[in-house]
Amino acid sequence: MERKEISKAVLKRLPGYLAYLKTIPEDASAYISATALANALGMGEVQVRKDLAQISTGGKPKLGYVRERLMDDIEQFLGYDNTTDAVLIGAGKLGQALCGYTGFAAYGLNILAAFDAFPSAENTASGKPIYPMDRLEQFCKINKVRMGIITVPSAQAQQVCNQLIDCGIRAIWNFAPIHLDVPSHILVQNEDMATSLAVLSMHLQAQYKDKK
Amino acid sequence: MERKEISKAVLKRLPGYLAYLKTIPEDASAYISATALANALGMGEVQVRKDLAQISTGGKPKLGYVRERLMDDIEQFLGYDNTTDAVLIGAGKLGQALCGYTGFAAYGLNILAAFDAFPSAENTASGKPIYPMDRLEQFCKINKVRMGIITVPSAQAQQVCNQLIDCGIRAIWNFAPIHLDVPSHILVQNEDMATSLAVLSMHLQAQYKDKK
Repeated sequence: MERKEISKAVLKRLPGYLAYLKTIPEDASAYISATALANALGMGEVQVRKDLAQISTGGKPKLGYVRERLMDDIEQFLGYDNTTDAVLIGAGKLGQALCGYTGFAAYGLNILAAFDAFPSAENTASGKPIYPMDRLEQFCKINKVRMGIITVPSAQAQQVCNQLIDCGIRAIWNFAPIHLDVPSHILVQNEDMATSLAVLSMHLQAQYKDKK
Repeated sequence: MERKEISKAVLKRLPGYLAYLKTIPEDASAYISATALANALGMGEVQVRKDLAQISTGGKPKLGYVRERLMDDIEQFLGYDNTTDAVLIGAGKLGQALCGYTGFAAYGLNILAAFDAFPSAENTASGKPIYPMDRLEQFCKINKVRMGIITVPSAQAQQVCNQLIDCGIRAIWNFAPIHLDVPSHILVQNEDMATSLAVLSMHLQAQYKDKK
């Protein structure tokens, strides 16, 4: 199917569908209906039907979608079938943890190397090389890297972001809890664990207050 | 200041303000204005002014806010000054990485222990204990744990979620890319790395297409 523009809202729901489809045993029915998906995920049937129609042409009346094909369509849409090479800047605890997380391979992400202003070792615990920052530009150009992951402290994040853009990076995954200023052709995706924790913590405190 | 209900939208912006305030050198002016904050973060002045008014009473005309006090107010609002104990379920690569990430302490999160259906060791690399699942209930009750972190594969996530709720957990940080069904008094915060990666990957592919 031709890859077309879909809304970010639809895009956000696709990994959920995929994750659920992957939990269905291989020997179950080859078909899955939008209704079954909607029920399993606690979602509205109309929304699931619309979402799937946008990314797959395989839906058949009464039968539904061929499961395997639907999974392929979603994965293709999410870009999981194209491996994206990335560099990671900031080989501290979080950076090293991300370098060692093998689960990213399933999402098409391949971290080639980590860079750090003051490398504390030649390799991460998981064996990825850690290079000093002055090697970043050459490395990105030789390897045609287009994605950068920022795991430096907030105070250094904007400067690192500017360096990445100078090196040809076009998509930035930002783990520093700070807003990054970028030109319009650069996409920044913030992984905002600080906010997640604040939301959870606020929920617990509100409940505690209710009880008093 | 009395802690009151604020919208999730405001809450999401607070960590950004805090991160920026922390980058200001200690010997800079003791005051910061909403205008200066708005300019530094590329945000609208009116929005910043409204947000700060909701969480701090310290703003003075012409001068702005006392920086130190504003940071304290934000941290208190975000619950960073209250340590929240948590258990983590799923001591795989991601779970172990989260257990070893010392940065969470700054956000008031303290992971007491990891649990796993089949513990591969007695401790994580960072020294946190890994217990079998049948010890979860007693552990949560003795330690009055209210937050649970799910880092198991999607196929096991709902079952683990149900177990956590049975053990008295009220807030769940979910790293499995799947929707969790919970009663209304339970808050689930999804850390959706799969979607982040999909958004970044889609941006790179769209750019690539434009060039062809």
